[in-house]
Amino acid sequence: MSRVNRQWKLRRRPEGWPEPDCWELVESEVPSTPDNHVLLRSRYLSVDPYMRARIGTTKTYAPSVPIDGTMIGAGVAEVAESRHPEFEVGEIVETFHMGWQDYKLSNTTGLRKIDPNLAPISTALGVLGMNGLTAYWGVVDVMACVPGDTVVVSGAAGATGYVVGQIAKINGCRVVGTAGSDKKIAWLLDELGFDAAFNYKKTDNYGKALQEVCPEGIDCYFDNVGGDLTDAVFPLLNLRARVAICGQISSYNNPDFNELGPRLLRYLIAKRVRIQGFLIFDYFHRTDEALPRMARWLREGKLEHRETVYEGLERAPEAFIGMMQGDNIGKTIVKVT
Amino acid sequence: MSRVNRQWKLRRRPEGWPEPDCWELVESEVPSTPDNHVLLRSRYLSVDPYMRARIGTTKTYAPSVPIDGTMIGAGVAEVAESRHPEFEVGEIVETFHMGWQDYKLSNTTGLRKIDPNLAPISTALGVLGMNGLTAYWGVVDVMACVPGDTVVVSGAAGATGYVVGQIAKINGCRVVGTAGSDKKIAWLLDELGFDAAFNYKKTDNYGKALQEVCPEGIDCYFDNVGGDLTDAVFPLLNLRARVAICGQISSYNNPDFNELGPRLLRYLIAKRVRIQGFLIFDYFHRTDEALPRMARWLREGKLEHRETVYEGLERAPEAFIGMMQGDNIGKTIVKVT
Repeated sequence: MSRVNRQWKLRRRPEGWPEPDCWELVESEVPSTPDNHVLLRSRYLSVDPYMRARIGTTKTYAPSVPIDGTMIGAGVAEVAESRHPEFEVGEIVETFHMGWQDYKLSNTTGLRKIDPNLAPISTALGVLGMNGLTAYWGVVDVMACVPGDTVVVSGAAGATGYVVGQIAKINGCRVVGTAGSDKKIAWLLDELGFDAAFNYKKTDNYGKALQEVCPEGIDCYFDNVGGDLTDAVFPLLNLRARVAICGQISSYNNPDFNELGPRLLRYLIAKRVRIQGFLIFDYFHRTDEALPRMARWLREGKLEHRETVYEGLERAPEAFIGMMQGDNIGKTIVKVT
Repeated sequence: MSRVNRQWKLRRRPEGWPEPDCWELVESEVPSTPDNHVLLRSRYLSVDPYMRARIGTTKTYAPSVPIDGTMIGAGVAEVAESRHPEFEVGEIVETFHMGWQDYKLSNTTGLRKIDPNLAPISTALGVLGMNGLTAYWGVVDVMACVPGDTVVVSGAAGATGYVVGQIAKINGCRVVGTAGSDKKIAWLLDELGFDAAFNYKKTDNYGKALQEVCPEGIDCYFDNVGGDLTDAVFPLLNLRARVAICGQISSYNNPDFNELGPRLLRYLIAKRVRIQGFLIFDYFHRTDEALPRMARWLREGKLEHRETVYEGLERAPEAFIGMMQGDNIGKTIVKVT
């Protein structure tokens, strides 16, 4: 049986903001499945800020997507064919290496089986996947939040941020979020139970705004954004504050890599502040500690999950660009089939 | 018996660099010693960068020296009179609260007895005192250096820096220092056994200079200085690098508190860098762990100590200003009597 595979190929590297014509959708025939391999059929794709670095011109921690290569990305897929004894047709898996395409042959390395009865399978890309785990370890290990801490989250309505805030709430913290639309702010306050939140796009003085919502200072800061907003956090950090640097999305589409900001290190000494850059990879070996309790919180309604869904593989570039521009609420995914 | 006390009073707060007329030397009579007190006679005074913050206009972690108050500072003193059962006349003590004066009454809180047979008593202010302990805990705990690490120290010829480098060497690390004169560089390389060092005042491109002496990147960075030099360290930090922020002396005399620099936080994520601001106060309860082995290293010649000595209490402002300007090598002290 011949199958057609649609693949998004990277055609050029964006200088600043990515544009739809950076990619082109092409068709090819799916090769037959070798021994000990499975053929995956994509169900959902994840779009994430880290992808910007993979298509850019700057060297990063992982190899770039080559020009004319298939765009990378995590996905949830169904086993369409199996020539591997441990996988059956119809099983659902999550993989960091699905790519923007309908089909992919896999030697099964890195496939994580997903139980469709536990939660909607798309959550394996978000709240019960990379973002949720990033949030969990960010709160409990990197920031080591304790009850009573005031925790500030930038990009609080994004895929990781909204889970950070909720886990910090479960942990007994006072949670403050920043986001870029009134709709997001209303969601954080009214549905997720954030203690305070403000729309940075309607705020002139971030320092004053933060001081108003954090009258006792900031104990923990989970940074997805960087830039001016992060600058304003530093003078408010309390004794022994912990800062987790998860992302700096404000700079990812800035071609000026030499952007200046106020010097922040002087704020660290007297307050004994710790800043930790981190990637979720470092915690993958501990997934079995985190995921069952995240799934339980989800079932018990202690953890809300929310997705912005783009229907159709052909909308993948649009989904990615929209996510980077902050159009999304919660996790942005592409529903392929 | 009436004794005359000379005291340096703070007369005005410096805006930028401190000048000698910020203080005035005045004389007064030493009051008699109350019960359960001792009268301390100053032998050596310590001058340290943190003092700049105490006389400035910016709020900091400790109370400012009031205008017309006696200048603060640590000292080594002799018990000149004792009305306290645990202290005898002639005993030598170190105290963080001696101040720039000949005599001080003390209720004995915070006095640390010094054994004059262990090492020269002035070392209680430097290599066997606050600086040495800062260096010790900076290397073994804050940076958690392990053999094979490349450790960069800024202000490497200063009171803390030169001990940091030596302890990192004892710890099996490769040590690189930066300092502001050829004489200092020669001392670091020829006498202290640093693996590499460069004079930042004769270096145009710090990044290139660091890359040349750290071809395998930087695992640990002990920062006394901040500013341009620290900026150049960040792109070279290795996976899981540890940065200890001990001082930012380049900014202490800069009245422009809003000085800009390149944004550094983006360097932390992929490399999982940890930055920790710290003060030695947090380790005082562990002094008994560190000091005996520091004293042994000193006796065994594994640790060199070096002092820049200003003779006479009247030279205290000169000593402080000289230290801030980088005229000193090793620990700067004032020999009072």
